[in-house]
Amino acid sequence: MKKLFPLVTADIALFTVHEGSLRVLLGKRANAPELGKWALPGGVLDPASDSDLDDTARRVLSSKIGVDVAFLDQVATFSGAARDPRGWSLSVLYYALLPRDQVPAVAGNKTEAVEWRDAFAPGSRLAFDHAKLVEAALTTLRSKVVSAALPLHLLPERFTLTELQRTCELILGHSLDKSVFRRRLKSEPSIVQLEGEFLYGAQRPAQLYRAAADFRF
Amino acid sequence: MKKLFPLVTADIALFTVHEGSLRVLLGKRANAPELGKWALPGGVLDPASDSDLDDTARRVLSSKIGVDVAFLDQVATFSGAARDPRGWSLSVLYYALLPRDQVPAVAGNKTEAVEWRDAFAPGSRLAFDHAKLVEAALTTLRSKVVSAALPLHLLPERFTLTELQRTCELILGHSLDKSVFRRRLKSEPSIVQLEGEFLYGAQRPAQLYRAAADFRF
Repeated sequence: MKKLFPLVTADIALFTVHEGSLRVLLGKRANAPELGKWALPGGVLDPASDSDLDDTARRVLSSKIGVDVAFLDQVATFSGAARDPRGWSLSVLYYALLPRDQVPAVAGNKTEAVEWRDAFAPGSRLAFDHAKLVEAALTTLRSKVVSAALPLHLLPERFTLTELQRTCELILGHSLDKSVFRRRLKSEPSIVQLEGEFLYGAQRPAQLYRAAADFRF
Repeated sequence: MKKLFPLVTADIALFTVHEGSLRVLLGKRANAPELGKWALPGGVLDPASDSDLDDTARRVLSSKIGVDVAFLDQVATFSGAARDPRGWSLSVLYYALLPRDQVPAVAGNKTEAVEWRDAFAPGSRLAFDHAKLVEAALTTLRSKVVSAALPLHLLPERFTLTELQRTCELILGHSLDKSVFRRRLKSEPSIVQLEGEFLYGAQRPAQLYRAAADFRF
């Protein structure tokens, strides 16, 4: 039977930094098609309840994964007759960022099997064209790091400059020169020094920072 | 009456450099809604004939505008219940680049009224949310210039470095330092010097170049 209308879905690449690497969330499919394969969380547009596709994406993350993310943006739209056996389909791909201190909340969700996979090696046999989708989301994420306050969305409320640099490095997949990085931050309006607040550990106390209240990128 | 499926369209911001400025093509709407207003060229997805949405976009440009473009890519997808009076709609926005020596071909199309508007000031009362779409396409185009061979798609087959620099400047909206620009081009694999071919004019002869056969960005 030929479908006259395309299947419209929102799929989300939810990234975090977990156990020292950049991770993306995959869920095990509980329904056909592609039953049992791992896929990005996603859901079908509901024109009656979603005011736009951002709504669809946020509804999926909230209902299926149990998180409300601060940052969510589009990557691209994947479409065609061949990518889903149910017929002509169109997936608007989003990427979202979860601060690493919120990872346990997701791990505790029991409604479906989820895993935080290495974003650079999420597995070779994902459902549909989702391996391509993960790659596209990663490329977008990496392209934003260079000039952006975007990694702040991956950090806890208070963080050190070393943590910020390490997070940027994890996304880029290569190390950054510390002095160049620190120099660039001097003119970065999106982070604010927390006067008199330090992280105490094995090293000498490290100055703590927070994101500016109205930071954007 | 409530629509159960969204209206899916591809809209295209077709850019060129014409009479010294960066232009975008608008067409005057010949049908309701928004009859008589100016809009980006666009068309409804036909799942029976389009293998993906890139096909839809190319079909629109070919059938409505009469051009087959070499470069076409997605900007973003605009969606929602409120943007089109016909109901829940989803527009996948593309941008495409037309070499400036192909502009006359478009101007000669008589099937609908078209105009090459200044891309930075396309008019204040465009149809639907198309003013926002033009702005989004322009932002994407500008972001690509910095590290890209993309402006080559706007040039004729043979061009001078001055023309290439001027084209980059038109997209960015500000001037570039000539010596920095030339230095960067030294390591740019996407352009090839045409041995012994020069442009003769009021100034001293200028070396001509072409795009490398397999250039990409």
